[in-house]
Parts: sequence; structure tokens; C-alpha cells
Amino acid sequence: MIPTITAFANSLDQGAGLARDMRVRWALEEVGQPYNTRLVSWEAMKQPTHLASQPFGQIPSYEMGDLILFESGAIVLHVALHNPGLLPEEADARARAITWLFAALNTVEPPIFDMDMAQIIETEKPWYDERLALLKSRIRDRLRVLTAQLAGNDWLEGGFSAGDLMMIAVLRMLHGTELLAEFPAIAAYVARGEARPAFRRAFDAQLADFKASSQAD
Amino acid sequence: MIPTITAFANSLDQGAGLARDMRVRWALEEVGQPYNTRLVSWEAMKQPTHLASQPFGQIPSYEMGDLILFESGAIVLHVALHNPGLLPEEADARARAITWLFAALNTVEPPIFDMDMAQIIETEKPWYDERLALLKSRIRDRLRVLTAQLAGNDWLEGGFSAGDLMMIAVLRMLHGTELLAEFPAIAAYVARGEARPAFRRAFDAQLADFKASSQAD
Repeated sequence: MIPTITAFANSLDQGAGLARDMRVRWALEEVGQPYNTRLVSWEAMKQPTHLASQPFGQIPSYEMGDLILFESGAIVLHVALHNPGLLPEEADARARAITWLFAALNTVEPPIFDMDMAQIIETEKPWYDERLALLKSRIRDRLRVLTAQLAGNDWLEGGFSAGDLMMIAVLRMLHGTELLAEFPAIAAYVARGEARPAFRRAFDAQLADFKASSQAD
Repeated sequence: MIPTITAFANSLDQGAGLARDMRVRWALEEVGQPYNTRLVSWEAMKQPTHLASQPFGQIPSYEMGDLILFESGAIVLHVALHNPGLLPEEADARARAITWLFAALNTVEPPIFDMDMAQIIETEKPWYDERLALLKSRIRDRLRVLTAQLAGNDWLEGGFSAGDLMMIAVLRMLHGTELLAEFPAIAAYVARGEARPAFRRAFDAQLADFKASSQAD
């Protein structure tokens, strides 16, 4: 049985691999699990058929037999818990790797996501400059901590784990800003993740889906 | 061996149980695991001793022998995975309950947290009214989905789970706003969580810690 995931038919990022289905594709590629993809348009995302698998009307979702999951964090963790390759075997190291997955989503992503949103919907607002400076300051605080944590190591917790996968997926949202250049150790960490064959396969697959959807329009 | 958690010595919420150590205390009470508490002042939180267990300088952290964890989501999940009582036994139901834990943290909490922060630091800003309205609209979208999901059931996924624990902990941040009154099914869901004996014990413990710290100042 092969899982089916949902993904954007027309991602706002034009196939740059920033939509959250990329995280799930990458995890599935890392563990060597083939998958089917159901592409969802912006209109279909709010319709009952899709809401049955993703009640908040977002992507991705994950379907495997009777099991339907959503939330990219939950899906990546599910894949990591049920397949070898994305979490250490030793119990304590395993718990620490999962901690980094949560840190990526709950401590590092929020200010990055807020900056991203501000750059989309608030550029014309009178408060934009002030708010952008505040968000960048919060992001720099996180990048300083991550730099210290990496401390010359390739990954956050021993070998590459689901924690690195999620952290790098989040940090990739900084491409195109000056922030990665300010933190060379973080830029190198992101580049190491992007160089992984599983990342490349996932990236190419979502880009191909985007191009096919665009041509069909 | 008993775990030690860190918590605010002087929580900004004055002991209302909104600080993130409350989530960990509640989980430990649900599974009947005694714990020690190390209270951390605002100054101590940014010092090397605390940063060794929580690199981002926040609370809570969790220490059990050589294992040190942080992120309330990671700690609650760790407690739930290693003790009976907070996750269904059946594999698919277990994965769904974990999905709700992620949904609480990554889909429901962000707009609620943003509203909370705006009400603390942005009330004097010229954009405050406009931004508050936008955030409330996003919160209402989430509460509508949760109302449909509960559909008359007591909990999100069968029996009470770590998913409910985290969701209710997040929704409690809406106390004092008009939003819970607008969604009576959500208000009743929160009240069901708050009526649990384990919640009461955790709440009382963190309130006692706050009062003791305040008197010591």
C-alpha cells in the first residue's frame, strides 16, 4: 500500500519548495517510501472532499488505508516513527531529535512565517518597516542559538534526523533575505540539507507538479 | 527517578496557568508521574545554567537523568509516548491524537498567540485595531473547524488525549475575550478539560509556585 499526500496544484512559491507538502515529500524520500500525490487547487481546498482529510482546508494531508493525517509536523513524525532512517535508535537521542522537530515548528518558524506574511500583505501598511525590523530581530535571536547548537557539527543531534529535516525546511524560507548571509554556519547547514539526494528528488517532484499544473491552466 | 521541570518563578499571567510549564505539569499529573520543579526568574532564564537545558532561554524544560528536553509539545508528547493514559493504544487512533497535538500548536495557537502579544505590546500602535480584527477573524475560522470536529463529542479523538490537553491549554488563552462566548461548544470543551482532577492539581501547583515566588520578592 502506498500513501497518498495532498499538495498545492499552484503553489504561491512557484515551485520553490516552500509549501508544506515539501516537508512530507522529503521525509518519504528519505525513508524510501513511494507515494501518490493528489494536487489540490485553491478552490478545491475549501470544498467538502478536501476538508474530509484536512479540516482546516490546508495542505498537506496524508492518507494510508483508513488512516488520514494532517499537519506537516504530525505527518513527518509519523513517517519517522514508523520507518528507519529519520530518528536515532537510542531512546534519549530519539527524544532529543523530536525536540528539534518541535523547536523548528514552534520556536524558529513563527517569526520567519510572520515575516513572510508581512512581506506579502503588509508592505503598504504604515507600520511595515517597524514590524519587519522587530521580526528580523527575533529571527536573528533564533539563528544565533542554532549556530551555537550546531557548533561545527553537520546536524543538530548526531546524524541527520527528522529534526534537521524540519529545521532546514523552515530555514529555507529565509532564502532571498540577507539573514542567511549574516549566519554562514546556518547557510551551510541549509545547503547540506538541500544537497541530500532525497531532498533533490522531493524538490524536483513538487516542481514538476507545479509546472504541469501551470501549463494545464 | 523523578523528572525535574523548569517553570517561571514570576509568570506574566499571575498564576492563571497560561505559561507553557502548565502543559507539562498537566500531562505529568494525567499519567500520575510526580515531578520536581525548578523555578527560574526572568534574569536566570538567559544565564548559561538555564541555557544548558533550554537553549532558546525559555521555559519549560524537562530533565530526567541524562535526558534533557525542551519545547512543551515535545515534552508532552514524550510523556504521552512513554506512559499509558494520554494516547489511544490503537495505532491509527494514536497517530490521529498526535495530529491534534500538532494542530493545537501549529494551526490554532499562532493567531491566538499573536493576538495575545498584540494586546501586550501593540495597543498604542496606530495599526492595533486593524490588526486585532484580522487576528480575531483568523481565530474564529479555527474555532468553527473545532466546533465541527467535536460535533457533540467530549474530546477530539475518542477518549481524552494529549491532543485535547494541548488544544485546551491553547484555547484557555481566549479566557477574557468574547471569543469563547461566541462558540459555546468550544467553551464547554475547555471547561471539560479544566474540570479534570489532573488539570486542577497542575493548576494549583503552578499557582502555589507563583504565590510563593511573589511573596519572596
